[in-house]
Amino acid sequence: MRLRMAMIGGGTGSFIGPVHLMAARMDSMIELVAGAFSSKTDISEKSGREYGLPVNRIYGNWEEMIEKESRLPADQKPDIICVVTPNNLHYAPVIKAINAGFHVICDKPLCISVEEALDIKSALESGNTLFCITHNYSGYPMVKKAREMVAGGELGTIRKVMVEYLQGWLSDKEEERGNKQAEWRSDPAKAGKAGCMGDIGTHAFQLAEYISGNRVKRLFSQLNTYVDGRILDDDGNVFLDFQNGIKGTLLASQVACGEENALSIRVYGTAGSLEWKQMEPNNLYFRKKDSALQVYRTASPYGSPGPIAEKHSRLPGGHPEGFIEAFANLYRNFALNIMALRNNEKHDSSYDYPGIADGLRGMKFLDAVVDSSEKDQWREI
Amino acid sequence: MRLRMAMIGGGTGSFIGPVHLMAARMDSMIELVAGAFSSKTDISEKSGREYGLPVNRIYGNWEEMIEKESRLPADQKPDIICVVTPNNLHYAPVIKAINAGFHVICDKPLCISVEEALDIKSALESGNTLFCITHNYSGYPMVKKAREMVAGGELGTIRKVMVEYLQGWLSDKEEERGNKQAEWRSDPAKAGKAGCMGDIGTHAFQLAEYISGNRVKRLFSQLNTYVDGRILDDDGNVFLDFQNGIKGTLLASQVACGEENALSIRVYGTAGSLEWKQMEPNNLYFRKKDSALQVYRTASPYGSPGPIAEKHSRLPGGHPEGFIEAFANLYRNFALNIMALRNNEKHDSSYDYPGIADGLRGMKFLDAVVDSSEKDQWREI
Amino acid sequence: MRLRMAMIGGGTGSFIGPVHLMAARMDSMIELVAGAFSSKTDISEKSGREYGLPVNRIYGNWEEMIEKESRLPADQKPDIICVVTPNNLHYAPVIKAINAGFHVICDKPLCISVEEALDIKSALESGNTLFCITHNYSGYPMVKKAREMVAGGELGTIRKVMVEYLQGWLSDKEEERGNKQAEWRSDPAKAGKAGCMGDIGTHAFQLAEYISGNRVKRLFSQLNTYVDGRILDDDGNVFLDFQNGIKGTLLASQVACGEENALSIRVYGTAGSLEWKQMEPNNLYFRKKDSALQVYRTASPYGSPGPIAEKHSRLPGGHPEGFIEAFANLYRNFALNIMALRNNEKHDSSYDYPGIADGLRGMKFLDAVVDSSEKDQWREI
Amino acid sequence: MRLRMAMIGGGTGSFIGPVHLMAARMDSMIELVAGAFSSKTDISEKSGREYGLPVNRIYGNWEEMIEKESRLPADQKPDIICVVTPNNLHYAPVIKAINAGFHVICDKPLCISVEEALDIKSALESGNTLFCITHNYSGYPMVKKAREMVAGGELGTIRKVMVEYLQGWLSDKEEERGNKQAEWRSDPAKAGKAGCMGDIGTHAFQLAEYISGNRVKRLFSQLNTYVDGRILDDDGNVFLDFQNGIKGTLLASQVACGEENALSIRVYGTAGSLEWKQMEPNNLYFRKKDSALQVYRTASPYGSPGPIAEKHSRLPGGHPEGFIEAFANLYRNFALNIMALRNNEKHDSSYDYPGIADGLRGMKFLDAVVDSSEKDQWREI
Repeated sequence: MRLRMAMIGGGTGSFIGPVHLMAARMDSMIELVAGAFSSKTDISEKSGREYGLPVNRIYGNWEEMIEKESRLPADQKPDIICVVTPNNLHYAPVIKAINAGFHVICDKPLCISVEEALDIKSALESGNTLFCITHNYSGYPMVKKAREMVAGGELGTIRKVMVEYLQGWLSDKEEERGNKQAEWRSDPAKAGKAGCMGDIGTHAFQLAEYISGNRVKRLFSQLNTYVDGRILDDDGNVFLDFQNGIKGTLLASQVACGEENALSIRVYGTAGSLEWKQMEPNNLYFRKKDSALQVYRTASPYGSPGPIAEKHSRLPGGHPEGFIEAFANLYRNFALNIMALRNNEKHDSSYDYPGIADGLRGMKFLDAVVDSSEKDQWREI
Repeated sequence: MRLRMAMIGGGTGSFIGPVHLMAARMDSMIELVAGAFSSKTDISEKSGREYGLPVNRIYGNWEEMIEKESRLPADQKPDIICVVTPNNLHYAPVIKAINAGFHVICDKPLCISVEEALDIKSALESGNTLFCITHNYSGYPMVKKAREMVAGGELGTIRKVMVEYLQGWLSDKEEERGNKQAEWRSDPAKAGKAGCMGDIGTHAFQLAEYISGNRVKRLFSQLNTYVDGRILDDDGNVFLDFQNGIKGTLLASQVACGEENALSIRVYGTAGSLEWKQMEPNNLYFRKKDSALQVYRTASPYGSPGPIAEKHSRLPGGHPEGFIEAFANLYRNFALNIMALRNNEKHDSSYDYPGIADGLRGMKFLDAVVDSSEKDQWREI
Repeated sequence: MRLRMAMIGGGTGSFIGPVHLMAARMDSMIELVAGAFSSKTDISEKSGREYGLPVNRIYGNWEEMIEKESRLPADQKPDIICVVTPNNLHYAPVIKAINAGFHVICDKPLCISVEEALDIKSALESGNTLFCITHNYSGYPMVKKAREMVAGGELGTIRKVMVEYLQGWLSDKEEERGNKQAEWRSDPAKAGKAGCMGDIGTHAFQLAEYISGNRVKRLFSQLNTYVDGRILDDDGNVFLDFQNGIKGTLLASQVACGEENALSIRVYGTAGSLEWKQMEPNNLYFRKKDSALQVYRTASPYGSPGPIAEKHSRLPGGHPEGFIEAFANLYRNFALNIMALRNNEKHDSSYDYPGIADGLRGMKFLDAVVDSSEKDQWREI
Repeated sequence: MRLRMAMIGGGTGSFIGPVHLMAARMDSMIELVAGAFSSKTDISEKSGREYGLPVNRIYGNWEEMIEKESRLPADQKPDIICVVTPNNLHYAPVIKAINAGFHVICDKPLCISVEEALDIKSALESGNTLFCITHNYSGYPMVKKAREMVAGGELGTIRKVMVEYLQGWLSDKEEERGNKQAEWRSDPAKAGKAGCMGDIGTHAFQLAEYISGNRVKRLFSQLNTYVDGRILDDDGNVFLDFQNGIKGTLLASQVACGEENALSIRVYGTAGSLEWKQMEPNNLYFRKKDSALQVYRTASPYGSPGPIAEKHSRLPGGHPEGFIEAFANLYRNFALNIMALRNNEKHDSSYDYPGIADGLRGMKFLDAVVDSSEKDQWREI
């Protein structure tokens, strides 16, 4: 059985639309059946056709789409609405989709304010639908392994978490050079109150809380805007105080010229430490107090990373699995959870995915990180 | 428009069946519509259902499938037959599929003798169908870049090619422990005259000829069988003499305990050299006589690897692309070529794929490598 | 001609004494002739004999040594006094040695207060002797290259500096386990007001200012003490605001379990960026806006790192040069400067070494970093 | 107590002379007291003065030096003669030095024929002096660890040894561009019958036998000369059959454009494998059948590499030790053995060094490798 999905946003030329499609398609569990890919009807139609949809399932207006598709017979109606519009256009379709009874997959960050986030949370609590936010980096097998090792005490008591997310693509004023990705991300009306921190800082924050299994209590930040005339931050550094005395740092930049997509995390405990780097995602470095450095590897037959990591890989060791595969793990897990819900079965908790709690945390993080930087003070989160 | 594909072999539990499916599906250009996944009807049915097929398109017998499917109306009939059976079961279905007018994708090595290979070549020459052999490693963007750099003279005159393919999974007698993959690969009746050399040596050989743009003229080999009671080689070393005075080495092993899937190649010329490693496929190391080491990277915005590599990547730089993506490049390119043929258009030659010539070369290589080792002599190829 | 050196501290069993000796000896320019290696006469004698000294040049009291040695005839008298005692015992011998007309090499940090540092500066200004502080990491060839590239504008305008120094050897309470190195470093009476920041933070700070060619104006820090009962910081994170709008981070720890001696620095500019890691010191990663990643390498014949780096390497490319060689570069450069001074010659400014200015900056950094952390405020430096 | 050394060859501008001196000097156990650095008296004098020698201990003629120095009183007479001339000038001074009762350190390869090597062996057997050949790569701590692990059975039964030594500095005809190093190495009268194989192939061969603890029985080689007009090989590939069924490959080149000094070795056994690379010598990769990849590191406090490696390192983990330090280990161990012999003490066998047996093996290897290549046949060794 396959689930059916309708998409909002993500038309031709966007980065994230095709990624969602490749990810959804990978395990043959989810099928695209409808879409409102753009508010411009012709672009939406062009995109839909390229994605293989019949014309009658392509819309220029997402409200119309939700209304019409929700009235389709059960064997045609989508199960999932996928929202991949700019940040300011998440809230409305997500709320409408939830209220219409659809499961929802939404791009990150969740929305543009804590208030919106709380509304979405309420909508979910009053309904019976599932929600996934695509903090996709938590879908990598070695990230699952890292989280499992921390939870299992293999590092002892955690002391320090260092997370970084460095890109260089906004080193120049790309938003004035016709780069669509840069345009909306640097426009407060579309991106919300944060630039770099919203776009990639929230990923780093989610990863730090996900792997450490701990929550940040307060933070101190310095947000920077290096490129003249840019309104939002394009760089920032944050001190993080977690629960249980864990200290951390979160360093993010989109003007780190020369960097591609350098997300990495290091976690130090009393008995050992971990390091993971997104750009070589199949390695997990484990430094234990009394042993030589060990390198766990995705699906390796030599010192297997264990059942949870194995459930999130598709190939034998040495066959590199990448970004799309990790993204697909969120889709696959979300689909399994929907099916379990539908069949009233208990699902295997190792097939997890980021949900509304992660989305809400992200919005609170952005509030705090902007406020702390403005006031030069520590800020509770 | 999508192409329709039927599969022979590749049922549940096989390694390569699901890989072909994920690869075929990635770009929404090819759709599985039928299959004879196993000669055991129940297994074939189970597999087909898991792959989402209706029962009437699932077969227990591939001959029956080709016959029935070839009689379907044009809007249902498959365009492509994909053959992923053990080596000894390539020849018959490939010939039959070609003769029935299907395009064919076949796993490597092509078959089990040069004679069979020549037959297939003849069949293709008498028909009008396209043929792809899945030497998938040539689908990586950085392999395309490497080939382009050699062809463009960036390394000067090539002198030396060093290719290696090291695995360790046959270090013990896996074929007696219920490992299906090991069973047929170590059985001469199913695998043909070579073990390690057939399974992975042919990949290394194809890669060396593909990147160097040169052909091996003669070779000297020492094949080894380390595991007691194993009949075929599980390891081997080969000296390669190419055209134009290029010398090379090909080192392959399936008993290199600790290695996962370590295919790598180095090419040395008078003006510089290249290195590529399959397990970190998004890097291409370029050592030029008068410059610091340079590292080209898939889709990098900093010193782009150029249009051919870009046509074979799907994500911005820093988002790791892996094995499935490279495999999918073969499918995508094959599909583009089929469409160009159908539309009578000239296709862009940068969308290349390994074909019958590569398949035939592989069989000749195996003949030579086995013969040289037995006779302790250099052997023409 | 060789220079003669007397050493204070650094007896048998110390880490840094033998390092200074190996470094001094490497280029045959400096010879150990006397020493007060410990205040315990027997230990001093034992050490001196192991270092090959005659008994009459071994002292149990450094004051006595300076007095007696300064009265020796010109062809026996030391040229240099080397001070390698714990931090609290730098000031007195350094002042006395300067006043007695000796050149001085002193371990870092310079002393235990800004006041002491200013006194040393005054003493130097009233005399005619040279002073070197062993911020040895600035002696690596690739660090010289990095500084040269920044100064030469190859990175454009600098925006961000990220420096880290991570060790794990104080993860447990080593100071109560008989570890002499840990004992004095964790004792405020001997180490001064900072622990981790004094021991390794000052190295990181010096390296950041050295390579960036810029000075930190103010900072915000959070110092941490993870190990129960420890008085001084064993970890800390610092935001750095440099001149010219450069922002930076300095992350240091001695409780980063699993880390050995992980000093690294990244510098981002508008046109490119640099990365250097002390544990693989012969590589310098250069990411330029419009080029593939380049890796400069110590003494490489392929894209030479240039004359300044070459003056600081001793072997052809590919022959790894390490910690002792970099340390020896400080000694060699200091010796060359002493000779130039003596001969009244202009010395080549590429043979530089860290001096009193670096030492004073370090003390100011420690004042600021401790004060900022205590008051939770930005602090001028 | 220090040992005194006289040097033959190694004058100003040579590569290896200063390396020997830095290595000898590092541990304060050996002191240069005399030298015949060149047959040109003025060059010898200039070199000797730069090395800090008095004029009366500098010679233009090595025979004169041996004669005069051997008549000096016991407290001045050298203990060791160090021979660092071109290959054809090893035999005569080595024999004369041995016969005069000196201990001898000689550069590799030992000489230019098996006959000469056997003569040297006989001379040593009739005397009571020790002999060291500077196969310096065996002095690295991680090489010691590798050998110990193989001997201790940690890899199970060894199956395969892959050694490589790749350089690119002879990619062009350097011998006609005033490069002294290239001149004699490419001249059969000075280098002997092999070029690349003599210069670096013998290092690789010694390393393979040293780490594997096994001897090569026969080999098959293909030697190549890529550069027009060059007489000796500048490249070559060899199959090695060891005792006990171990197979191996030795790939060497001096025309591998872009390579610096890329010596590496991999050893595969039934229970695991090892990898070591000279250009990052402080890592030893250990892949065990049932564990994640482990990385042993020189002097690491985390999973110490054990006592033998520790005896061959001088710094705490994370402080990179390099080529000179490894070279110095040979000198230190040789000095310790001389002292033990003198004091009639049993020496600790972990302080080993390559001796006459290694030198003789090297000459036999060269005979075989040249002969096999000429005759296109396997050749006993």
